[in-house]
Amino acid sequence: MPDDPAPLPPGSPTGAPLVPDHAGRRAALRGLLVENGVDALLVTDLVNIRYLSGFTGSNAVLLVHSWDTRDSEERTVLCTDGRYRSQVAEQVPDLRAEIARACAPRVVALAGEWQLGRIGYESHVMTVDQHRALSEQRAGLELVAVPGLVEQLRMVKDDYEVDRLAAACAAGDAGLATLLERGGLRPGRTEREVARDLEWAMFEHGAAGVAFETIVAAGANSAVPHHRPTAAVLAAGDFVKIDFGAIVDGYHSDMTRTFVLGPAAEWQREIYELVRESQRAGREALRPGARTGDVDAAAREVIEAAGHGEFFVHGLGHGVGLRIHEAPGIAKTATGTLLSGVAVTVEPGVYFPGRGGVRIEDTLVVREGGPELLTRTGKDLTEVG
Amino acid sequence: MPDDPAPLPPGSPTGAPLVPDHAGRRAALRGLLVENGVDALLVTDLVNIRYLSGFTGSNAVLLVHSWDTRDSEERTVLCTDGRYRSQVAEQVPDLRAEIARACAPRVVALAGEWQLGRIGYESHVMTVDQHRALSEQRAGLELVAVPGLVEQLRMVKDDYEVDRLAAACAAGDAGLATLLERGGLRPGRTEREVARDLEWAMFEHGAAGVAFETIVAAGANSAVPHHRPTAAVLAAGDFVKIDFGAIVDGYHSDMTRTFVLGPAAEWQREIYELVRESQRAGREALRPGARTGDVDAAAREVIEAAGHGEFFVHGLGHGVGLRIHEAPGIAKTATGTLLSGVAVTVEPGVYFPGRGGVRIEDTLVVREGGPELLTRTGKDLTEVG
Repeated sequence: MPDDPAPLPPGSPTGAPLVPDHAGRRAALRGLLVENGVDALLVTDLVNIRYLSGFTGSNAVLLVHSWDTRDSEERTVLCTDGRYRSQVAEQVPDLRAEIARACAPRVVALAGEWQLGRIGYESHVMTVDQHRALSEQRAGLELVAVPGLVEQLRMVKDDYEVDRLAAACAAGDAGLATLLERGGLRPGRTEREVARDLEWAMFEHGAAGVAFETIVAAGANSAVPHHRPTAAVLAAGDFVKIDFGAIVDGYHSDMTRTFVLGPAAEWQREIYELVRESQRAGREALRPGARTGDVDAAAREVIEAAGHGEFFVHGLGHGVGLRIHEAPGIAKTATGTLLSGVAVTVEPGVYFPGRGGVRIEDTLVVREGGPELLTRTGKDLTEVG
Repeated sequence: MPDDPAPLPPGSPTGAPLVPDHAGRRAALRGLLVENGVDALLVTDLVNIRYLSGFTGSNAVLLVHSWDTRDSEERTVLCTDGRYRSQVAEQVPDLRAEIARACAPRVVALAGEWQLGRIGYESHVMTVDQHRALSEQRAGLELVAVPGLVEQLRMVKDDYEVDRLAAACAAGDAGLATLLERGGLRPGRTEREVARDLEWAMFEHGAAGVAFETIVAAGANSAVPHHRPTAAVLAAGDFVKIDFGAIVDGYHSDMTRTFVLGPAAEWQREIYELVRESQRAGREALRPGARTGDVDAAAREVIEAAGHGEFFVHGLGHGVGLRIHEAPGIAKTATGTLLSGVAVTVEPGVYFPGRGGVRIEDTLVVREGGPELLTRTGKDLTEVG
C-alpha cells in the first residue's frame, strides 16, 4: 500500500499559510443582511454553515446576527447535537455553541429571547415542513424568505479557496497522469476498472474523496454525456471520455479529457479539434464583467458554425467550490455577470448518438487579464497505446 | 492493482436472480395515496425516486398516479433533463419519460392537463421556494402536504433489498478482515492511514463507495462518538474504534468494532464487556411488534445498571438502506413499532471523555424468530498485535 501523501499544503506566494477567514465571511454576509432588511439569518444549509464557520458535522444550524457591532459575533450561534460536542469546540472555537436535539427551534427561541425581530431564512433550502414548524413556534419573530445570500458570497473565491481548489485540481491532474503511466487506459479493460484505478490514483495524490461519480465512457458510450461506468470493455479505436474530480479540504475539482485508443480516425480528429476550439473560445470569453450567456454563446457558436449545434446538448459550464455544482451556471439562457475570483468549469461537448462523443473540460478562476487555469493536464489529442 | 471483484451477485435461495420490483413498490404506494386522499404524488426526493423507479440520475421528478387501474401506470411519469436521456430509457423502460429543463413545473402542467385534482407533495423534502413556484403555477390543482409516505414503505425491506444490504455488509466485513490480515491496524500508523486502507480494502471486496466518512478513533479520541480521522498516531494500549460502511447497489452497511492495541487493561475489558452485553440486549429486543423506545431501553438499562448511563450519549440505532440514516430511529424518545423486514443498526456506546470509549454496532433485519445479522465480524474483545 502506498504512503499517505499529503495534499499540497495551503500556502500563499509569500509562504505564509492560508486559513479560511470565517469571521470575514460573516462580516460580508452582514452587509447582505442589512441590504435585505433582516436582523439575522438562520443558516440551515450545511455547506453554507461550513463556509461561514468551518463546522463540518452532519447536523447544524447557524444564526448570524446582522448588527455590525461587537455584539454581533456574540449573538452568532452555532447549534449541533451531542455527537459533535468536541468537534464543534475544536472547529469553531470563536462562536457560541449550543447543543440540542432539535437545533432550529432552539436557535429560533434564542432569537426570540433577544427580540431580533425579522429573521431571514434560506427558503431555497428549508423544507415546507421545517418552515411550518418554525412558523408555529415563531416566538414573536417574523420569518422572511431570503434565498441564496451565502451562495452569492460563495461565488467569488478568496485566496484560501482558490488555493484549495488548485490542490484538488492538482490531485486530479496527478491521478490521471498516474493512470496513464501505469498503462491503466488500454483495450481490454472495463470502464469500471479504469474509473476505480483513476480514483485510487487520486487518493494516492492527496484526494480525500471523489468529487462525483467518475465517468469513464468508451466507444459509443462516449456519446452519453453522463454515462456511468459499466463492464463495457475498451477497444482499439474507441474514444474514451473521462470526467472526474477530487475533493481536498471540501473543495471539488472537475476535469474532462477525451482520449483515442490507438490512431484516431479522421472523424474523431475533426470532432476533437472542433470541441477543443470551442473550449478555447469559451475560456477566452471568461473575464470580469462578461455575461454568462455570452460565454456560453462564444463556445457554442464554434460548434454551431460547424453544423453540429444540435449535438452540444448541455450548458457550457458551472460554478465549482464546496459543491461540485454551484452558482453561476454558464448556459444559453443564463443571466448574470462574472466577477473576478469566480471559479467555473468550461466544458463543451459534441455527442454523435451511437457513435461517440468528445468533451473537454477545465476548471478555471475568472481574473483580470485572463482566467487562471487550475486543471493543468494538456489538451492535445492523445492517442493512447 | 487488484482485479475488479464483483460484489455478491443478487440471488435468491433458489438461485433465481433478484431484481427490484419497482412496479410492486408503486402499487404499494398507491394504497397510501388512496388512504391520504390524493390523486397522485409528486416525488421529488431522489432516493425515493430511485426506490420507486430505479432511476439514479442527479435530477428528476416522478409523478405517481394513485388510481389502481391500467391507466395509472400510463399516467406515471418520470421527468429528467437532457443529460440523462439515454440513462432514463435504460433504467426505467417501463415508465413514460419526459425530458425538460425544469421538471416539477412540467410534471405539474401534465397533471393539470389530466385534471388530477389533489396532488400530494413531499413537504419534508420540497423547499419553501419550490412550493411557492408550484403554488403560483398550480394549473387548477390542489397541492397537499403528505410527508414521508415513500419513507414509510422503505422501512420494510423486500428480498432484493435485504440481499443488497447483505452484500454491502459483506464488503464491510471482508474489508475489515483484509485490513487486519495485512497488519494495517498497529501502533505507529495514523488514524487517517487506517481509514484509507480500510476503504481501499472495501473497494477490493466490491464496495462501490463508502457509506459515510469512515471513523477511526484511537486512544482518547475513541471517546468522541463521531470523531473524524486525524494524523493522530496509534499507540500500544489504545482503544481503536472503527465505524464504517460500504455501498453496494445504493445500499449502505454500517458496523462499528472497537479493538485494543495489545493487552487490554482491566478498565478496558470491563467497559468492552459492558457495551457488548448492552448490544446483545438491544439485538435480542428486536422483534416484530416491539416499540422502538423499548428496544433502546433494553440496551440502555444494562449500561445504566453499571452506573455509566451518562456516558451513553446517543440513541441506540437507526434504520439503514438507500440512505445511511433512515426510519426508524431507535432512541429513548422514539415512538413507533418494528415490523418484520425493517433493517436497523444496534450500536450502544460508552465514552469516558479524555480517556477512551467503546461502541459495538451491527446492521440487522428484524424477523420473526430473531433478527437476521448482516454484519458478521465477531464481537469478542480483540487485542491486536
